[in-house]
Amino acid sequence: MLIVVSAPSGTGKTSLCREVLAMFPELRFSVSWTTRPPRPGERDGQDYCFTSEAEFRRRIEQGEFVEWVENYGHLYGTSIRTVQSFLDQGHDLLLDVDPRGARAIKERFPSGVFIFLLPPSLAALEVRLSRRGESADVMAARLAKAKDEIREMIWYDYLIVNEQLDEAVDRLRAVYMAETCRRERFYDRMKGDLQSLTG
Amino acid sequence: MLIVVSAPSGTGKTSLCREVLAMFPELRFSVSWTTRPPRPGERDGQDYCFTSEAEFRRRIEQGEFVEWVENYGHLYGTSIRTVQSFLDQGHDLLLDVDPRGARAIKERFPSGVFIFLLPPSLAALEVRLSRRGESADVMAARLAKAKDEIREMIWYDYLIVNEQLDEAVDRLRAVYMAETCRRERFYDRMKGDLQSLTG
Repeated sequence: MLIVVSAPSGTGKTSLCREVLAMFPELRFSVSWTTRPPRPGERDGQDYCFTSEAEFRRRIEQGEFVEWVENYGHLYGTSIRTVQSFLDQGHDLLLDVDPRGARAIKERFPSGVFIFLLPPSLAALEVRLSRRGESADVMAARLAKAKDEIREMIWYDYLIVNEQLDEAVDRLRAVYMAETCRRERFYDRMKGDLQSLTG
Repeated sequence: MLIVVSAPSGTGKTSLCREVLAMFPELRFSVSWTTRPPRPGERDGQDYCFTSEAEFRRRIEQGEFVEWVENYGHLYGTSIRTVQSFLDQGHDLLLDVDPRGARAIKERFPSGVFIFLLPPSLAALEVRLSRRGESADVMAARLAKAKDEIREMIWYDYLIVNEQLDEAVDRLRAVYMAETCRRERFYDRMKGDLQSLTG
């Protein structure tokens, strides 16, 4: 199962995903490729797969990314091969992708589960972004982008408001658990074991 | 939202529903009507609405039941009026109905959420039923009925195996929580509040 989470910057997506990932060993995180240099504490292959722009462009040409984007001068992308190999190993996979990328993933993996995280309000988002101490220009650009992204929520399967982190974590966990109980997925998981129930 | 739970006798449906109901004050239990006499400890209006056969038949004729069934000589039914009045008050409603009744409810309330609880295996169900100390005939009849009911799982939205009660409770809780996060329901719940998110 593919779980795709999108959220405007400042919604707390990273902490939320991290907490849910810690709860389910069978759920893995799909690490994105990027040309942006690692920030302090970030590890290659864990937070991102760091690579050069030349290498990234080569991979684009070879069709290795199910989605990629240029953001503030850096490239970010999701490798089809990584996604597919996790799924082939029987893992569920959590992806953290913006709405544009999520839409590309939905085209390729239509049975994925698409979750959009929302801030409690635009005002609350502004407060959270302002704590990052960025310039008024950057702030305004981020807010405008957030508004654009929030408009995309109309096609997601689930919407979760991150007002209290623990409540939002509980909801994201619930969505994942519920999806494993959906009849179609349940059948996939059970396979031959259904025999013992249908006699 | 209407949550309909079905399960073969001996699957532990009653305890499971009771635990989940205790977690969510906004989720109410739809009390069935019955002509069977109350068992010790059962309260009228809480466990069942107890009534006479004449009265029950009068209600059938007036189309008051969305579904009803005769079981071991007693009549059981779900009142449309009760269901509708809970929904009108903005409550979510949990119904405990057999697959035949659940199907009738699905026709009337197609946006309901239909959950089927399964025993870990037919052998496990047999063990649980045998603890009730019933005759071999009654046991055989119950098992045959369970097999028939389990065949109905193919049209339910969610399947939950009740192997460990606490795990099954957690899953049922997760399905309810996840369904409240589904985009369509989320919109209904938020109504005007979306304004603060879309600017």
